[in-house]
Amino acid sequence: MSVLGATGSVGQSTLDLLKRDPPRFEVAALTAHRDVEALAREAIAVGAEFAAIADPGGYGALKSLLAGTDIRAGAGGDAIIEAAQLAADCVVAAIAGAAGLEPTLAAVEQGRRVALANKECLVSAGSVFMEAVRAAGTELLPVDSEHSAVFQALAGAEPGSVERITLTASGGPFRGWDHARLATVTPDAALRHPNWSMGRKITIDSATLMNKGLELIEAYHLFPTRPDQLDVVVHPQSIVHALVAFRDGSVLAQLACPDMRTPIALGLSWPARMETPTKRLDLVALGALTFEAPDSDKFRCLKLARQALETGGMTPAILNAANEVAVEAFLQQRIGFLQIAELVEETMERAAKGAVSTTWQDLADVLEADAAGRRICAEILASNLLGRVSMVVSERLA
Amino acid sequence: MSVLGATGSVGQSTLDLLKRDPPRFEVAALTAHRDVEALAREAIAVGAEFAAIADPGGYGALKSLLAGTDIRAGAGGDAIIEAAQLAADCVVAAIAGAAGLEPTLAAVEQGRRVALANKECLVSAGSVFMEAVRAAGTELLPVDSEHSAVFQALAGAEPGSVERITLTASGGPFRGWDHARLATVTPDAALRHPNWSMGRKITIDSATLMNKGLELIEAYHLFPTRPDQLDVVVHPQSIVHALVAFRDGSVLAQLACPDMRTPIALGLSWPARMETPTKRLDLVALGALTFEAPDSDKFRCLKLARQALETGGMTPAILNAANEVAVEAFLQQRIGFLQIAELVEETMERAAKGAVSTTWQDLADVLEADAAGRRICAEILASNLLGRVSMVVSERLA
Repeated sequence: MSVLGATGSVGQSTLDLLKRDPPRFEVAALTAHRDVEALAREAIAVGAEFAAIADPGGYGALKSLLAGTDIRAGAGGDAIIEAAQLAADCVVAAIAGAAGLEPTLAAVEQGRRVALANKECLVSAGSVFMEAVRAAGTELLPVDSEHSAVFQALAGAEPGSVERITLTASGGPFRGWDHARLATVTPDAALRHPNWSMGRKITIDSATLMNKGLELIEAYHLFPTRPDQLDVVVHPQSIVHALVAFRDGSVLAQLACPDMRTPIALGLSWPARMETPTKRLDLVALGALTFEAPDSDKFRCLKLARQALETGGMTPAILNAANEVAVEAFLQQRIGFLQIAELVEETMERAAKGAVSTTWQDLADVLEADAAGRRICAEILASNLLGRVSMVVSERLA
Repeated sequence: MSVLGATGSVGQSTLDLLKRDPPRFEVAALTAHRDVEALAREAIAVGAEFAAIADPGGYGALKSLLAGTDIRAGAGGDAIIEAAQLAADCVVAAIAGAAGLEPTLAAVEQGRRVALANKECLVSAGSVFMEAVRAAGTELLPVDSEHSAVFQALAGAEPGSVERITLTASGGPFRGWDHARLATVTPDAALRHPNWSMGRKITIDSATLMNKGLELIEAYHLFPTRPDQLDVVVHPQSIVHALVAFRDGSVLAQLACPDMRTPIALGLSWPARMETPTKRLDLVALGALTFEAPDSDKFRCLKLARQALETGGMTPAILNAANEVAVEAFLQQRIGFLQIAELVEETMERAAKGAVSTTWQDLADVLEADAAGRRICAEILASNLLGRVSMVVSERLA
């Protein structure tokens, strides 16, 4: 096993499982972004072969923390790629953001089985990435809970027999709020997710429902489906993670208590299933599972993501890049909660007017689209929208 | 395809599917118990090769109804066996009661794939029947909704990875009633099932929860599981039909609007899935799925069935036979609703005291146990219990 992004939320859950079942797993490589101490500690705990830190300046510190062990240290982008390419039965690709694209693609191109937790590989680079998976003849196992659920519900099904794939959304902490209330949402409030403990960026995406929109785009690439066969239903308990409806009227669903270790374990052990220490589902104790339609008028990010999926080409990469910039601006209290969707929409409109190509050739095109999305979004932030936005922020702070 | 029990509830649903997709299916044989006219009509509608009526006296009528067609007519037990043995890709075994044992076993022994809707094959003759399935190397596809759900949720799973199999029960029309109210239940009230349209016997079994108890015994034989891994949860909406919990914390469930055509279609087309005209699941319209623990103190048939499963040997056959007699007595208003469980329990106790063997050799032993259960139960009915029971009935009628 190798874990790319070992110190993040998914990486830590993965290591928790690997450490519980040590005789079964040998760890080839661990990587981290900046946290040298956590990386060294984990590498020693699992007896990794190689530890790589993305920050080139972290080399000295990592080397001295690993002194006296057999663990090789590396730093910088090339070291991360090397970690991804190291021989391993499974590479857990859990580097967040566009930074995860190159290393994950490198693992795929080496024919490694990839347990995928990076959204950008499918959202921004979906066609390029899936083409590489097919070319390498390797296996891709989604490790977020919704796609893992679809994967399990589909197991062995003929593609033609599927009528509909439904992802569930908790609806986030602001489900049912009106526009006026949504305008007052603070980063602190948005970071308190009712069901899942996750990183900051994804928690905000959960609150805006952009997370679910990005998952629709991912599902489109992962599973043999048309955009109109993909659906979202709000399910506040986060117990049912996805449902697959077949043409005979049967629906298969995967359920589990919210815990990332369940889908990660599947990625590590499929087609077997490893024991996990997760809380077991107790339907009688839960009493009820409820479902409602998402309000995509109030939570416009979901609508924008569907629009990007239907438009295709570079649009999902633009959407994702703009959303990253917008969420960061929200977390810094530069814009209000509702402006996240406004910024993304404005960025998509401007990008569509620009002469950006709508087809992809390779990862370079994707990275260019990603950069364009970030640049356009930052420009809007710095200019006109910022004026409008700051008014809202002042109102809120008053 | 052949359909044994073509004029019953499952048989009719099967024919509905076969008639919708005629170019796909050719019908070898249809059988019926007594209803010569319905049998002849269906045989002509699907262009069957052979039609057999169990009632030997029905031969003349069947022959004349089929005059002018190419359909061969047969009558009596041997004709039913012949129908079961006729070359067919799949035999739908939907003869109700112990009468279904021999023909279904005959189909299995010919190596036919059997879509099984007869409970007795597994409840009374489980070990003998499953041994025959293994010996013939054939496939057994359960076509009732709960076991079809388990079958789908298990697809491809390693037996060792399963922690628990949960069947759902609607709870019947008397869920939450207390003893005093249950004592007043009439056959008419018990025949009004909230979710399913089924035959009379199975509708009463649904109301007493004996149906779910018998399904636990069936599940034990169908799937690699221990009795203590089998569970029942009450789910009044009858949308989730069963759930399989795995050791990684994942639970796979099958959901569908209550319609027998969905599990029957799976039996006919697995591993493909045929299109059905069934109502599609709409979780948003449903709003909520609820779950509660079954009350096996009030619905004692469930407890008795679990006891029979744990005791093993002939006990499930005795339980099933006694229940058939008791339900018939209830439908004839000879006993009250609560006396169904009393009669079954008393029969099980008397049979256990008798020197009946606890192991099975062949179908003859099963038929003997079945006959013993019926005889003992009838004796109780005719003697002491009847005295107690008639009091309750008179009170109710007063």
